[in-house]
Amino acid sequence: MEKQMVGELNPTPRILMGPGPSNVHYRVLRAMSTPLVGHLDPEFLSFMDETCNMLRDLFQTKNRLTIPVSGTGSAGMETAFVNFIEPGDTVIIGVNGLFGERMSDVADRCGAKVIRVEEEWGRIIEPERMTQAIKRNPEAKICAIVHAETSTGAQQPLEEIGSFCKPREILFLVDTVTSLAGCEVKVDDWGIDICYSGTQKCLSVPPGLSPITISQKGMDVSHLRKKKVQSWYLDLTMIERYWNEERFYHHTAPISMLYGLREGLRIVFEEGLGARFQRHQALGDQLKMELEKLGYRLFAQEGYRLPMLNSVYLPKGVEDLSVRKRLLNEYNIEVGGGLGQVKGKIWRVGLMGETCRIQNIECLIGALKEILA
Amino acid sequence: MEKQMVGELNPTPRILMGPGPSNVHYRVLRAMSTPLVGHLDPEFLSFMDETCNMLRDLFQTKNRLTIPVSGTGSAGMETAFVNFIEPGDTVIIGVNGLFGERMSDVADRCGAKVIRVEEEWGRIIEPERMTQAIKRNPEAKICAIVHAETSTGAQQPLEEIGSFCKPREILFLVDTVTSLAGCEVKVDDWGIDICYSGTQKCLSVPPGLSPITISQKGMDVSHLRKKKVQSWYLDLTMIERYWNEERFYHHTAPISMLYGLREGLRIVFEEGLGARFQRHQALGDQLKMELEKLGYRLFAQEGYRLPMLNSVYLPKGVEDLSVRKRLLNEYNIEVGGGLGQVKGKIWRVGLMGETCRIQNIECLIGALKEILA
Repeated sequence: MEKQMVGELNPTPRILMGPGPSNVHYRVLRAMSTPLVGHLDPEFLSFMDETCNMLRDLFQTKNRLTIPVSGTGSAGMETAFVNFIEPGDTVIIGVNGLFGERMSDVADRCGAKVIRVEEEWGRIIEPERMTQAIKRNPEAKICAIVHAETSTGAQQPLEEIGSFCKPREILFLVDTVTSLAGCEVKVDDWGIDICYSGTQKCLSVPPGLSPITISQKGMDVSHLRKKKVQSWYLDLTMIERYWNEERFYHHTAPISMLYGLREGLRIVFEEGLGARFQRHQALGDQLKMELEKLGYRLFAQEGYRLPMLNSVYLPKGVEDLSVRKRLLNEYNIEVGGGLGQVKGKIWRVGLMGETCRIQNIECLIGALKEILA
Repeated sequence: MEKQMVGELNPTPRILMGPGPSNVHYRVLRAMSTPLVGHLDPEFLSFMDETCNMLRDLFQTKNRLTIPVSGTGSAGMETAFVNFIEPGDTVIIGVNGLFGERMSDVADRCGAKVIRVEEEWGRIIEPERMTQAIKRNPEAKICAIVHAETSTGAQQPLEEIGSFCKPREILFLVDTVTSLAGCEVKVDDWGIDICYSGTQKCLSVPPGLSPITISQKGMDVSHLRKKKVQSWYLDLTMIERYWNEERFYHHTAPISMLYGLREGLRIVFEEGLGARFQRHQALGDQLKMELEKLGYRLFAQEGYRLPMLNSVYLPKGVEDLSVRKRLLNEYNIEVGGGLGQVKGKIWRVGLMGETCRIQNIECLIGALKEILA
């Protein structure tokens, strides 16, 4: 067999202003290069507990089951559905972007009867439309919605829907992949039962883990299932026995990724949640203003625009791919294009976690001024 | 909210002689601390291609679909079943240890009719028993078996079963989590259609990815499915569109883990497969001999003992937990205990990848002599 001649890993340093991954703090990278201990080593079990405690503070919850799932945000989404749905269950899903679509697909594969509450991409779903759908379908088991639609930049109001679900049997499921650690996510106050996120957005940890938290109401539903969860890998009734005091082996934890997450969470709490949210809001506002000055129009609905993911229509005459290619090749800046029905029409400019720094805004705006001149 | 006071990450350096994770080469750790590029960055796409090419050489296959799944080995196992089974399909599974049991559980959750070919733990399954089961169940879609049973240390012969499956419609599925990169795994020559592994064993990359390879015969079956794959996250018909020239976004790739895998594979091919297998065999033989001198009896069937995972009965009077605790606390050596029905009865001593070095054998044997004196 021919010997491989693959060279040293030598990527160009980039400013990651796309929809994720965001730039990673050097302390997180350093933590990931720490030699491994075993996944049942008492030292590792302490790291696990510390990580879960910090995740609880980040989700603003007291939920016992608050853990990182061993996969990316989409694995978190699948975990959020697969543990609670049994074939024939009704699920109400808000669909106003790609990730609402993905939720429908995932729920459908679990055998759910999916009721879609649709809205134009870029707009939020009026909370009353969700609560009315619940009233019309009182048998529904889950009401699911995306907090921060990464495909559109819209920020969904959650509190009204949560208060409506709380006294009822229905579980409130929320995707916070892009919002967590960049703006308020109050799992307990908002009555969220199932909430998942990703590490590669405002947490500024590499992609590979999906923090998730489940309320007692949610766990009760999963423990009363008639059929086994269709995914062995994502079965929380087994996974919780590894993360709780039983320490029962399920699958080998992704140790280095967990080292990285623990360090990323430490950095979040050194800054403080309030200061971190404020930084994202202020710099998000500034970026939007600067982009508008250059002729970019904001895409997402006014009053409901995410601070960490800024979606903008391209100005007339600005060609999507060639300008993004110049940004990448000449300035080492990555910005995201549109997905699905807005492909070629919008850009998605991320200001997440470590990427959310004034110098990155200056750099992007300066580069665009040169390119568009 | 109270501020977290979690200290710096500061684990004790360990010699990882359990059933995985194994010790990781410093070059792999260094690669994992490399700053990230985006998952659609042209530079990253090159890294992906290089990684897949090396994985093909490692699996000794020309299979186009040869990629790392974004989860640990158990996610690879689930991928291997969920893409090919539709409810009601018959699957024949060899069960002679925990991972054969796990395969049965996974297949059952896919709605398969599972036919178990059972054998005592520690023994191999005679190939004729598998081929006879296929003859008796000609409708069976998959014949599945574990190459290296991590729970018992037995090495399953595969060639006869593979030759039997090759001219038939049935797919031959093999778990090589513990064997890949430590002994021969000849996917094409042995007629394997579906083969998965993990990174944290003989590859000596941290846990978190599962290399998998699928034959054209296998992909044809998955493309002819009537129903969607029940797992969105592990649906190869979508994942392959990201890894092939389409580069269609599915989920955000675990970039840092992939950096680590690429470097781990480079190290494998610098050493050469032949030399690497020889090192595992020679040191595995030496460890077994040294352990026998200390009164440990070998657990797995003679003639079919894995080089990289050495299962031994405890000598009389040696208490499992207290001795392993002393090894860990006084000598920083981790060895594995027994799982399931052999819990408390055997140890599993790993010599995988970077752990498979003469100095680690000396260290373990020296420590045991002191403890057992």
